[in-house]
Formats: sequence, structure tokens, C-alpha cells
Amino acid sequence: MIDLLIGKIDKLNNPTVVGLDPQYEMIPRYIREKQLERHGKTLKAVGEMFYEFNRSLIDALCDIVPAVKPQIAMYERYGLDGIEAYLKTIAYAREKGMFVIGDIKRGDIASTAAAYAGHIGGVDVEGVHFDPWKEDAVTINPYLGYDGIKPFREICEKQGKMLFILVKTSNPSSSELQDVMTDDGRILYERTGDLVADWGEGLVGKYGYSRIGAVVGATNKAQGEALRHRLPHTFFLVPGYGAQGASGRDIGGFFDTDGRGCIVNSSRGIIAAYKKSDRFGEADFASAAREAALSMKKDITENIF
Amino acid sequence: MIDLLIGKIDKLNNPTVVGLDPQYEMIPRYIREKQLERHGKTLKAVGEMFYEFNRSLIDALCDIVPAVKPQIAMYERYGLDGIEAYLKTIAYAREKGMFVIGDIKRGDIASTAAAYAGHIGGVDVEGVHFDPWKEDAVTINPYLGYDGIKPFREICEKQGKMLFILVKTSNPSSSELQDVMTDDGRILYERTGDLVADWGEGLVGKYGYSRIGAVVGATNKAQGEALRHRLPHTFFLVPGYGAQGASGRDIGGFFDTDGRGCIVNSSRGIIAAYKKSDRFGEADFASAAREAALSMKKDITENIF
Repeated sequence: MIDLLIGKIDKLNNPTVVGLDPQYEMIPRYIREKQLERHGKTLKAVGEMFYEFNRSLIDALCDIVPAVKPQIAMYERYGLDGIEAYLKTIAYAREKGMFVIGDIKRGDIASTAAAYAGHIGGVDVEGVHFDPWKEDAVTINPYLGYDGIKPFREICEKQGKMLFILVKTSNPSSSELQDVMTDDGRILYERTGDLVADWGEGLVGKYGYSRIGAVVGATNKAQGEALRHRLPHTFFLVPGYGAQGASGRDIGGFFDTDGRGCIVNSSRGIIAAYKKSDRFGEADFASAAREAALSMKKDITENIF
Repeated sequence: MIDLLIGKIDKLNNPTVVGLDPQYEMIPRYIREKQLERHGKTLKAVGEMFYEFNRSLIDALCDIVPAVKPQIAMYERYGLDGIEAYLKTIAYAREKGMFVIGDIKRGDIASTAAAYAGHIGGVDVEGVHFDPWKEDAVTINPYLGYDGIKPFREICEKQGKMLFILVKTSNPSSSELQDVMTDDGRILYERTGDLVADWGEGLVGKYGYSRIGAVVGATNKAQGEALRHRLPHTFFLVPGYGAQGASGRDIGGFFDTDGRGCIVNSSRGIIAAYKKSDRFGEADFASAAREAALSMKKDITENIF
């Protein structure tokens, strides 16, 4: 999958991923009204709104953006109906040829981690295989150590799937634990990064990157550049671009000398672009998203050095 | 909710919680066959098996055990049908008067954390409030710092709900990050513990414990005892008893001098007790669970000092 992902990025010359993280207020009024009329004030109505919104976004983006990253929390909030919209969104994005990163940030141990690994590995029932989630890759939290990674790694090894493990996140309070200096001179997130590199050994594909990637926030330029040098075989998923403050200039150095090594996420800045535009009305939200995605692509590719 | 939980523990004189973490192999054959006959080899069949299994366990345990802790991974593995079984299990346990800790270990930032906080806070749609998840408390991962805690804390403050934040987990590789020595002489999990205590300030109830609790594994006696002294207002959820190796003797010192301060979890050791018993057949799995729960209660309450 790492080679598939990099192949898609190369083909579109676009190392970005759109975060499909709908919030109720982002949904254009006409979609809200239609679904409320059909389903009443229910969670089902919200699920249908989200799916309709995402479907149009995927249609508008699938020929220019290689991947989507739905954030499961936004769907999980609405219970089963929300999760159904998450699953339908994934199925539709895959149908349109997009790579799907499930932003699930799960993290647990032993048999529990094995159960979560069903997100990428599916599950067998009496000899019949099911794949209810269908993500190509998922995000994972490292706080519990390798016990929480192992079952996922096995699926990456056997089925070619991918992981992105949180190393340095883009939020201000990530410093509380991640930036702590430790006794051997490494900052905690550096230790996490080194662990991720270790866990990824033996899973390196033809572009030199492992199927075990890292989440590295765009909001700290120097840290990201240093991590690029430190972890030459670790592919980065980079949040924090756009709405969280980072621009192309901040992250040029997160890429390698071949212009590879990262996929940069933007969520609100793309999917809710129509809200910040004078030229696009809410009926044109998908066109606004496409324009914002092209502008992000330009900003990032121009700044890779 | 912390006062409600401690009140339930006091009333039953039983500081334990049963982990409702079903795995396919644990389900008695007659339940499997019944549901496979009804629903075929489907995820729906598994969801129904899990719910039937849990329902009997809850019936057998609700007058002697104050709380259940369903581990969402075990359900999530089976997609929507699995999650439906999780939700039905929670609803049934609450109906039977049990306190429900959703073991979800979520952790994210900002608007995403706010979305996950819907697990305990519910969500509004056009002025109508929905509570799709209904947990009384949930477990949370601290790697992202306070940004990931804040929206949950607000719900704890306003709606009296509870959190348990991972501090020191019970698995061997928890040492990789949690046991790292940091520059001010504190081990990383101690720093996490201190953060949890800070985050819990202002939310302390009548027994002296905060609504923001901590997960502290049973598998390291000395660490747990030291954390008890270090965090006098932090209530502990203690995994690792039984199947993971710890016994009552190991965790007596995790309690305070009033015999409070902890709730100890066992999953497999209770719900799959029939598999290790000569006296109970699979049709008596619930009776075996009840006997195992009483034996655990005895082992723990005798060792509180």
C-alpha cells in the first residue's frame, strides 16, 4: 500500500490528502433541509447529510487528489448512523480510486489490539472473510508500546496495508508529553519516532519507505525537518496545514530530496472552503473544495526543495 | 458519577468491574449455532451472539458486581453489527443498574476530541438531544495532552460523567514510552499521572476522588502503590488482574486507608470462567462467571490493607 500510495501521489503530482471531517455546521443548508425532510430530526438524517456532502466532495476531488482521510470521531459522534456514513464514504472513495486513510487513532494491547486491527485486516466468521471497515491505512497511538502495534504490523506484512503512528502531533498541548526531554538526550517524540522506524524495518517498499509511517504535525518546521533526516525510511502523514496555521513554506523540508516522503492533510480548509469564499455559494461547495485543493497542491509542490 | 460509582462499590462491598470483552471462541457452542441458524454466517449473527452472551452475564452479575467495562474493540471488529451489540449491551447493563465504563481509549484534539466526547455527552441535532452511546465513563489516551482531554472534562464538569486516563498500563511493552526517565527526575508515567491530577482539580466528589480517574495496571505492585500515594484524589481503574497475572495480594496497596480508590477489572477470568472449570458446562457459563466474580471479590477485599 505504501507503494500504491506513493504511486498515486506521483501520478497526480499531489502529495496531499483531504480530511473528510464533516461537522454539522459545514453542511450546506439545502442538503440539511432535504435530509431533515426525509428522515426528520434524527441521527439517520445527519448520517445521510454527511454521506451526500462527502460524495460530492469525492466526485470533485478524485481526479486531482490521491487520498482521503475521514476522521472517524466526526461520524462516531452520531452513533451507528454516523458510522454507517463513515463506511459508505470509504466505499465510495475506494470506488473512485482514492486511497483511504482511516483516522481512528486506536491504541490498545494484545487481544484488544488484534481486534482493532480488524479495521485493516477484516475478520473471519466460520471460515467466511468479512472486511467491514475497508481502510487502506489507519492511524495508531503509540502510548502502549509495541504490544499495541504488533497485530497491525502483521497485517501490514501479510496484506500490504499501512499504518501511521502518532509521533509529533500538531496541537499546542502535544508538548506536555511528546516534548519531554528524556535521560538519554532524546526528546520523547524522537524516541517514539525511533520506535516507529524500528517497527517498520523489513516493510520497506520500492520507493525506500516503510509500510509503517508516522504522523508528524506541520506546525513545527524545525522538528519536522529534523525528523525527516532522522527517519529516512518513514513516510509522514502531516496534519496541521491550513486551518491549523501551517503553509507550504513551513513543510517543504519535511520532504526528501526526491520530493517524496510526505502526504499533507487539510480538512476544513478544503471541505468548508465555500464558507470563506466570495465567489462560491453553498450550492458550489464542491467546486470551492476543488479550487482550494488545487491551490493547496500548488502551495505545497512549489515549496518542496 | 464518581460518587455514584463509589456508592455502588460500597453498597456491594465489591471494588471490581467485569470486562465484557467477548471473543468468538468464548461464546458457548449452543449460542453460536442458534444465531448462525437464524442469521447465517454473517456479522449480524456474531453481534447477536455477543449480545445474548452479555445479557446472560449481566443477569448473573448485576446484584454482586457494581460495573461492567465493555471493550469496544471486540465489537468494532465486527463493524456496524458489532457496534450495535456494544450499544445494546450498554443499554441492558444500565437497565440492570450497573455502572458502565466504555473502554474506548480514544484520544484526539480540538474539534475531533469534542466529537469523541459525544460518547459521554451526546449530541444535539436541530435542538433535539441524542445520546447514542450512553457510557457513564470512558477511557482516554493522554499522548496528545490537554487538548484531547478538555472537551471530555467539560462534560464531566457539566453532566457529572467520568474519565479514566491511561497512566500506566498493564502490558509488558508499556515500558517503551511510559517508563522513560525524564529530565526532571520523574518517570514519564508519573508526569502523566501528575497531569491527570491537575486536570481533575475542581471535580472532586464527597469521597475525596475526582471525576478524572487514571488507568493503572495491576501488574506492577510497587508502581501502583507509589501512584496511590502520589495521586491521593485520583481514582484508579486497574486492569491486569487474573488472566494477565496479578492477584489480590499484588494490588492491596493500590487502595487507600478507607479501602477505597480503585476498581479492579477482570475480563476473560470472569466471562470465560466456564472454560477453565470442571464443574460448569458451557450451558452454565453465567453461573461460572458469577462464581468467579465472587471469588475475585473475596481475593481483593481480603487483601485491602
